[in-house]
Amino acid sequence: MALLVVGSVAFDSVRTPSGYADEILGGAATYFSVTASRFAEVKVVAVVGEDFGERQMRVFTDRAIDIEGIERAPGKTFRWRGAYEGDMNVAQSLETQLNVFEQFSPKIPAHYLDCEYVFLANIDPVLQLHVREQLPRARWVGCDSMNYWIQGKPDELKRTLATVDVLVVNDGEARMLSGQQNLKRAAASIREMGPRIVVIKRGEHGVGLFTDGSDFFVPGYPLEEVRDPTGAGDTFAGGFMGHLARTGDTSEANLRRAVVYGSVMASFAVEDFGVKRLLELTQEDIGRRFQEFKHLTHFDV
Amino acid sequence: MALLVVGSVAFDSVRTPSGYADEILGGAATYFSVTASRFAEVKVVAVVGEDFGERQMRVFTDRAIDIEGIERAPGKTFRWRGAYEGDMNVAQSLETQLNVFEQFSPKIPAHYLDCEYVFLANIDPVLQLHVREQLPRARWVGCDSMNYWIQGKPDELKRTLATVDVLVVNDGEARMLSGQQNLKRAAASIREMGPRIVVIKRGEHGVGLFTDGSDFFVPGYPLEEVRDPTGAGDTFAGGFMGHLARTGDTSEANLRRAVVYGSVMASFAVEDFGVKRLLELTQEDIGRRFQEFKHLTHFDV
Repeated sequence: MALLVVGSVAFDSVRTPSGYADEILGGAATYFSVTASRFAEVKVVAVVGEDFGERQMRVFTDRAIDIEGIERAPGKTFRWRGAYEGDMNVAQSLETQLNVFEQFSPKIPAHYLDCEYVFLANIDPVLQLHVREQLPRARWVGCDSMNYWIQGKPDELKRTLATVDVLVVNDGEARMLSGQQNLKRAAASIREMGPRIVVIKRGEHGVGLFTDGSDFFVPGYPLEEVRDPTGAGDTFAGGFMGHLARTGDTSEANLRRAVVYGSVMASFAVEDFGVKRLLELTQEDIGRRFQEFKHLTHFDV
Repeated sequence: MALLVVGSVAFDSVRTPSGYADEILGGAATYFSVTASRFAEVKVVAVVGEDFGERQMRVFTDRAIDIEGIERAPGKTFRWRGAYEGDMNVAQSLETQLNVFEQFSPKIPAHYLDCEYVFLANIDPVLQLHVREQLPRARWVGCDSMNYWIQGKPDELKRTLATVDVLVVNDGEARMLSGQQNLKRAAASIREMGPRIVVIKRGEHGVGLFTDGSDFFVPGYPLEEVRDPTGAGDTFAGGFMGHLARTGDTSEANLRRAVVYGSVMASFAVEDFGVKRLLELTQEDIGRRFQEFKHLTHFDV
């Protein structure tokens, strides 16, 4: 089934202990859609500037990602510059130029309106809700958010949360949003705000899935080198939502598999800068690492 | 098979967000042996002072733990005072009175000498090696250590590590000992120092088991309240070594089950202050939580 994502497309400049990348293609909608396109038919709603070239657009079109919802606006594309050192779980933001993203008003092409799977990546919760309300036929809606909105627009965010099925956030965000330090309580508190399902990303420590009366944890894949953690969370969401859209199955057992596929894809993403590693993956690579996750967590009773 | 542990017996005073406990029975050898006694025949080597009463000793003897190796020395028992706030993974040590532990020279009763399973809890690595060398028939030796020895006696610790099968440490200690920030590299580096098996405890994030060419992770059990994290690591070690001693099987599959039993026991330990929860557990409680760990981590391929 088709999967719609709304979010940022950006040029990122990133320094990590492994090196430096200058103005590479990034943004939540990019990581999400490149990843999800391995699993399902993907449609993007985003905005880019006049400096966004054919070469960058081909990253989407080469994967049959529907770009009719990518608006080209006067001005420059969103730019972000960041660095990681020591704790690879936390980025230091050095510079953010919103550019055309500042006035982003998501426009949804007519033929997107019957998408059944939707992901509202991290943007202003007012825009998330606006998109959500235009998609009454969506049967499974996921969303992400961040500290900036949790602190700055808590009421607007809660209105959005009341309309979604699953929230995907990191542990710090879950704690801030719920006011609960304990992760299990944080998840329970967020579930009372609307989403029946809460997925909490814990960086190198993996991911927790909290549903009605059942918790599931998958560890981070133990890599010897993390070259660039940028986009790992959006990549996770792309694998998670992509698997659900591909199968059309949101049972507990399939949600668990979706969490593992998200973790598989995120583990590849961080092996190189930007979306580089994601673009060169084969389906065999993905299948093999899924099996490795099984081996990593399996024990006989 | 019999399991020998050498380590500290102490009186702990602990403050956590859940409350305060004053001079309760603690120490690595206590948590370890109370836990391991659920699985195997346990023999303790430790030292206590003249203030250590019959009531405290009965915690051991009621569980058929062999206390012939607990020496009673002139003076007071080791005392520790600590507090936890916010991040429950890290204790603040407020006061340490070594007392009789300062001159601890482990004496091994003759009938302990044919123990096949041995755990050298966190004490001076010189003493660990001294104990190790008196037990030539031991076929499986585990040890723990801490920052204090890693920094203060690195060469002595490495001599001990060269003689053991498994090192059980937390993530910060693994990084300090190896000089590697990345956990997988840290484990590989420690394995080159001697132990074929490295177990890395990550507090609420669970435990990693690193063996020859295979990694295994089990998450922390998601508790709504951690009342007192003191002794969780030693309790883990008691369940881990206890299961190995009970089964006499150190295959990869059984090491994994041992890591889960260790995690099960640690998850109970933190539910109340000191060893309180460990003392009241039934075998059914243990079996039920083992199954819950399976459910917590299982996904269908």
